[in-house]
Amino acid sequence: MSAAAKSADQPLSAQDLTSIDAWWRASNYLAVGQIYLMDNALLRRPLAAEDVKPRLLGHWGTSPGQNFLYAHLNHQIINRDLDMIYLSGPGHGGPSLVAAGWLEGTYSQVYSHVGTDERGLNVLFRQFSFPGGIPSHVAPETPGSIHEGGELGYVLSHAYGAAFDNPDLVVAAVIGDGEAETGPLATAWHSNKFLNPRLDGTVLPILHLNGYKIANPTVLDRIPRQELEALMVGYGHRPYFFEAGFDDEEPAQFHQRFAALLSEVLDEIARIRTEATDGILTGRPRWPMIVFRTPKGWTGPEEVDGLPVEGTWRSHQVPMAAVRGNEDYTRLLEEWMRSYRPEDLFDEDGRIVEQIARNNPVGTRRMSANPHANGGMLTRDLDLPDWQEYAVDVPSPGGANAEATRVLGTWVADVIERNRETFRVFGPDETHSNRLGAAVETGGKTWVAEVVDTDVDLSPTGRVMEVLSEHQCQGWLEGYLLTGRHGLLNSYEAFVHIVDSMFNQHAKWLDATRDIPWRVPVPSLNYLLSSHVWRQDHNGFSHQDPGFLDVVMNKTADVIRIYLPPDANTLLSTYDHCLRSKNYVNVVVSGKQPGPQWLSAQDAALHCARGIGIWDWAGSEVAGEKPDVVLGCAGDVPTVEAIAAARLLAEHLPELRVRVINVVDLMRLQDEREHPHGLSHRDFDSFFTTDRPVIFAFHGYPSLVHRLTYRRTNHSNIHVRGFKEQGTTTTPFDMLMMNDLDRYRLVADVIDRVPGLAERAAGLRQAMLDMRVRARNYTREHGEDLPEVAQWVFNDEDNTQGSGAPGADTGGDND
Amino acid sequence: MSAAAKSADQPLSAQDLTSIDAWWRASNYLAVGQIYLMDNALLRRPLAAEDVKPRLLGHWGTSPGQNFLYAHLNHQIINRDLDMIYLSGPGHGGPSLVAAGWLEGTYSQVYSHVGTDERGLNVLFRQFSFPGGIPSHVAPETPGSIHEGGELGYVLSHAYGAAFDNPDLVVAAVIGDGEAETGPLATAWHSNKFLNPRLDGTVLPILHLNGYKIANPTVLDRIPRQELEALMVGYGHRPYFFEAGFDDEEPAQFHQRFAALLSEVLDEIARIRTEATDGILTGRPRWPMIVFRTPKGWTGPEEVDGLPVEGTWRSHQVPMAAVRGNEDYTRLLEEWMRSYRPEDLFDEDGRIVEQIARNNPVGTRRMSANPHANGGMLTRDLDLPDWQEYAVDVPSPGGANAEATRVLGTWVADVIERNRETFRVFGPDETHSNRLGAAVETGGKTWVAEVVDTDVDLSPTGRVMEVLSEHQCQGWLEGYLLTGRHGLLNSYEAFVHIVDSMFNQHAKWLDATRDIPWRVPVPSLNYLLSSHVWRQDHNGFSHQDPGFLDVVMNKTADVIRIYLPPDANTLLSTYDHCLRSKNYVNVVVSGKQPGPQWLSAQDAALHCARGIGIWDWAGSEVAGEKPDVVLGCAGDVPTVEAIAAARLLAEHLPELRVRVINVVDLMRLQDEREHPHGLSHRDFDSFFTTDRPVIFAFHGYPSLVHRLTYRRTNHSNIHVRGFKEQGTTTTPFDMLMMNDLDRYRLVADVIDRVPGLAERAAGLRQAMLDMRVRARNYTREHGEDLPEVAQWVFNDEDNTQGSGAPGADTGGDND
Repeated sequence: MSAAAKSADQPLSAQDLTSIDAWWRASNYLAVGQIYLMDNALLRRPLAAEDVKPRLLGHWGTSPGQNFLYAHLNHQIINRDLDMIYLSGPGHGGPSLVAAGWLEGTYSQVYSHVGTDERGLNVLFRQFSFPGGIPSHVAPETPGSIHEGGELGYVLSHAYGAAFDNPDLVVAAVIGDGEAETGPLATAWHSNKFLNPRLDGTVLPILHLNGYKIANPTVLDRIPRQELEALMVGYGHRPYFFEAGFDDEEPAQFHQRFAALLSEVLDEIARIRTEATDGILTGRPRWPMIVFRTPKGWTGPEEVDGLPVEGTWRSHQVPMAAVRGNEDYTRLLEEWMRSYRPEDLFDEDGRIVEQIARNNPVGTRRMSANPHANGGMLTRDLDLPDWQEYAVDVPSPGGANAEATRVLGTWVADVIERNRETFRVFGPDETHSNRLGAAVETGGKTWVAEVVDTDVDLSPTGRVMEVLSEHQCQGWLEGYLLTGRHGLLNSYEAFVHIVDSMFNQHAKWLDATRDIPWRVPVPSLNYLLSSHVWRQDHNGFSHQDPGFLDVVMNKTADVIRIYLPPDANTLLSTYDHCLRSKNYVNVVVSGKQPGPQWLSAQDAALHCARGIGIWDWAGSEVAGEKPDVVLGCAGDVPTVEAIAAARLLAEHLPELRVRVINVVDLMRLQDEREHPHGLSHRDFDSFFTTDRPVIFAFHGYPSLVHRLTYRRTNHSNIHVRGFKEQGTTTTPFDMLMMNDLDRYRLVADVIDRVPGLAERAAGLRQAMLDMRVRARNYTREHGEDLPEVAQWVFNDEDNTQGSGAPGADTGGDND
Repeated sequence: MSAAAKSADQPLSAQDLTSIDAWWRASNYLAVGQIYLMDNALLRRPLAAEDVKPRLLGHWGTSPGQNFLYAHLNHQIINRDLDMIYLSGPGHGGPSLVAAGWLEGTYSQVYSHVGTDERGLNVLFRQFSFPGGIPSHVAPETPGSIHEGGELGYVLSHAYGAAFDNPDLVVAAVIGDGEAETGPLATAWHSNKFLNPRLDGTVLPILHLNGYKIANPTVLDRIPRQELEALMVGYGHRPYFFEAGFDDEEPAQFHQRFAALLSEVLDEIARIRTEATDGILTGRPRWPMIVFRTPKGWTGPEEVDGLPVEGTWRSHQVPMAAVRGNEDYTRLLEEWMRSYRPEDLFDEDGRIVEQIARNNPVGTRRMSANPHANGGMLTRDLDLPDWQEYAVDVPSPGGANAEATRVLGTWVADVIERNRETFRVFGPDETHSNRLGAAVETGGKTWVAEVVDTDVDLSPTGRVMEVLSEHQCQGWLEGYLLTGRHGLLNSYEAFVHIVDSMFNQHAKWLDATRDIPWRVPVPSLNYLLSSHVWRQDHNGFSHQDPGFLDVVMNKTADVIRIYLPPDANTLLSTYDHCLRSKNYVNVVVSGKQPGPQWLSAQDAALHCARGIGIWDWAGSEVAGEKPDVVLGCAGDVPTVEAIAAARLLAEHLPELRVRVINVVDLMRLQDEREHPHGLSHRDFDSFFTTDRPVIFAFHGYPSLVHRLTYRRTNHSNIHVRGFKEQGTTTTPFDMLMMNDLDRYRLVADVIDRVPGLAERAAGLRQAMLDMRVRARNYTREHGEDLPEVAQWVFNDEDNTQGSGAPGADTGGDND
């Protein structure tokens, strides 16, 4: 750098200015080339029809602005030796980020068939959005990406997730102004209340205001400047406004202006961080952010067919469609591409000239090669305490009583303790309600906003992150995982549907990475769904929905796992397994209410390893004989009912041979050809027989069990009881009866389905139905369950045994 | 009103003040009573254990603040003769809104068993969150409610939806500060850019800042006042701040202060509306909003067991749990309830005293009895143009080519034209992309923010509402429907998962209303899912997901309908049906790409009426003989493949008897006992036979067809092809091949499954597989589909025939 040539207003030396501009032109050229061309990448000859792709798929509109940002960020990375990654909110700007990766050489390093020369360039262009090629988004295939942006709204949450516990990292998060209209993005701005300026990294939000979405203006572009400024101040930021491309200002000038602005912003960030490190700053700083206003499709065709294109929504995708075979469009395209002066950008071999290379950082400082964006490279396994030491003592099946999630919480607390920099718990204000209180007390809750006397457990170094937005929690966790750390998200079961589509995208991301050799596996995304459908005491019908499991089941078997541990020790064992796994989405459903415990630690470990098991102690089989009926169960509450039903049968029909099977790993029900955990047909038959009636008590919608088993030999005999969309605010046992999942109904089901039993056990059947009536009437009169059924359907002890402290959590609840 | 007693600072007369305060105390008393008591409602005797519910379920924290607001809003309704409804964001404040309904007499009018006297009061208390009683939320059972709030974040969207096209309505929307952290709420503030101040009603947002969620402080309570103010200004509002309850100010004083503030706010609203009506105001006004800061659990126990309760999260649910049998708590509860001086509130019979009644508006001015909150009362049927006049001319099956949604758009345009005040189209910036362009051009797009020269179709009176937030679109539409108007939401199929949980809640709402006689049916919620899984050309894998149908299927059959029209005329017929229906959720999936047309208008009407049909012209059956194989299909793209497969079979295996069945109403596949549209087993068997192989080409995940048919006689012979989570950015036919849904695979499937064919047709089978290889190779080389398969898999003509205007929409796209 030649200091003499620079000033605060003109911070770039002539050489830097030339480099940045060349880098920008090159990346623009590459973006256009990827969208349009399948050959003749360097325009060695006039563009011909066969050079142009027959299907033009890609988004030009956001690319030039992002290229500009990337070029300038590179300059700062080099100058300041920054450890920075880049998240592209409007992720369909794939051409931009692929271009950057290629310019930086990373692309050719991870994809050897896409070389750094003319031949490579032709491959690069052709493969984009082309059959057998790469997606149009900033997909997993794009080096440097942890954020596809396929669905909008998550870039800031991902950015903050990446920054947590990475004090030296700067995350540049480019937010599309369309994206900014989504709910998740609108609330994600408040993430700064959860970022520790000393121990976490920095997020630099850059609002890319280019005015249009697909076919409409954007809201934030069409409010007065003072409102936009107030909004950013309201979000806790100090906004810096930059605007270019709307007049005839020379590139040299707007480059200098942006370099000056970016320097100022990065100086401010450095000052904040120094003050935080030195302990001068203790509260929440007002972090800078940039409003970056440039025309949509900047530098592209100003007009096509007499209609304005640059600066309008017509630039959103391809400024001219149907170029192939259209002579005018072809000439326009060629002219456009030549406007970047490719002859000055690439040498004879098609390699980038030194002027451009100068603006590339080196090695892992390249944003396309930063290991944080390939998080598995940085992952350290968790130091996990031995879960068996936290196990409940279960002298005999049913011989102990515990709240499964509360027990898990004690273990999670120590997981936090041992892994203070690599593990976090996320939840939408429900972690305490879900009885992971020990984790909250040990970890503290992250909070960098104001506090008052009555607050408890809040801390700027908290490890439990709570905000009333499932989107925010999920987004943070995804960012945290994709940069190589570990975590879990706990939520009420019904509300996890809020992030159905985020789950989908993450599962698809993981699925895609399995075919990308250079992507190192990252820790799994772990859900803990509590306050589930059977115990939504406070809330009733609107909170009763176990359908997330159905959503999950639609994703690739390679990626998804569903566990329904029946008690505390199986929950511990399951979670120990989940926190050791990689590249999965593990969904664990477990209640928080007191309930009977079935398995000792040792038995739980074995049961979970098998995923499914015959519980001899619960049934009445005789060795060597086929059972008369199989009672299957999956889920904590259905397990209680199945076992209660088995006991009733043993008492009243002692000669009946009942087999009880508990399923903890739901994927075991599937065919081994469908899922790696699936049972072979032979094994399945040995569990469920080939011809005996099976009554299956299931946590979720019954159709899911049918879906998993419909090809099984004995499927026509499988009768599933589960949630059938009946519910309200009522007692736990009444909920079971409303859905025909209660023990009495299960006994009646057995009688109905075991051949010959209908007549012989008619009296018992009637007695069972009478019990249902009695239970219902008792509940309606007394407002609680009949004592004899409540024995195993524990109401919260706080609530029934007189120990209710103020604010004691008394069941399912939500703000 | 005694004017002498009032001033701007002290606007309430002594009598009004007394009335408001008594109304507030009464509603607080009723809220506490509902949560805690099952008898002794008027505390005629000291509280005993048996008076207290054994299970305490409900939320006190938000109730007193909302009661205060309701009391003051009532006063203004009376004074100004306002037409106002009340939406309670933190909807679990059920006790508050039920109390209001009872005080206003509405509750006893709609529920005659809950009288206005002491006996009624005892019933009111007992039924709350009690088995056989009512939910704890502001559920459909609550008169005056259109917003349950079971899941948080939608109150502002619902409020705006209610206000659109209701110029005389004021919607008071109380937003919980926990709720304010959700994404949907965070973006919903921007709804004011879409509200016409002359032709729409008024939304008055009231941010209820009470500091805590379930177990955490709220973000908006813990940012500096100037940031909160900036945030509201940034959202386009003029905020008014009110705070009470944190010191020893007398109720008389804070009532006066709030009455003054509310008057000022309502004066300002009146001024804005007058100016808008008079044409003085043309742009977007800065609407007022109120920040209402009061302690959580205001007026409740200050301390329990030495811990602070009022003003903390410990007030969120029940301040003291486990009261029953706890003498101290019982006394504390009684003291608390007596602090409201029930003896001054209720007369000997338990009826409210005149002082309270004075603060109740009359008749439909009562917010609990306002017909807008029971929207079916106000619904006018749509004036629908005859869809057959918009139909495509189809001389023979496959003999015409059209884009289904574009055709639908022409009809929707005229639906808009004829119903300018009662019908709107909603979509997340995709209405044009989904080719409903005619609707956009006729209706215009609602926009009250700034405009620039390059904008098109924007108008403050637009009927198409676009914002890049599926949450916002869905929330607006729900509010619009629940107040009795009509609409449809169009979305890319993959992204509708974003509102899975909103769909769930709305479906549950509709389900619940079916058992509430006084709720008048409202128009159905209509989805149009286009840019579906098979034609996500621009976006690829991340946008490929047909799983919304699976989510929908989990809800009650009484409420849900799924339609998969195979072409334009069936789409028209289907939508005509949907827009006439009430209390359903209709999900319609239809592509937007050019495709072959099968049915004339008349045939389409018949086919849609039946929901399922054998397409003789497509098959090769011989009358009186059983077919050898059945080719089923549902969805536009699978229908093309099934028919192409049938043609291949007819050509190469002319002796094979093939039956082609198209399913437009997916519910027809279900058992008639499961769904009102379901086929009887006999009818199903007559379609699908009892023993012939069935190859079913399905739009979505194959498991859904199995789920619908697994109890059918012939189920073990049903082989379903559908989306199996394989995809990327590629050509349409390549997508089909990746998922084994292409015509060649279907022919091979037939050969594999028809007994005896395997050997005889081995050559054809190999030829089919060879064709797949050829098609794949062609695609990889040329970047487009083999011409012979593209014949029916139309690429967009814009893109392939050289007519691409700038910005032409060239496939699936999203910002």
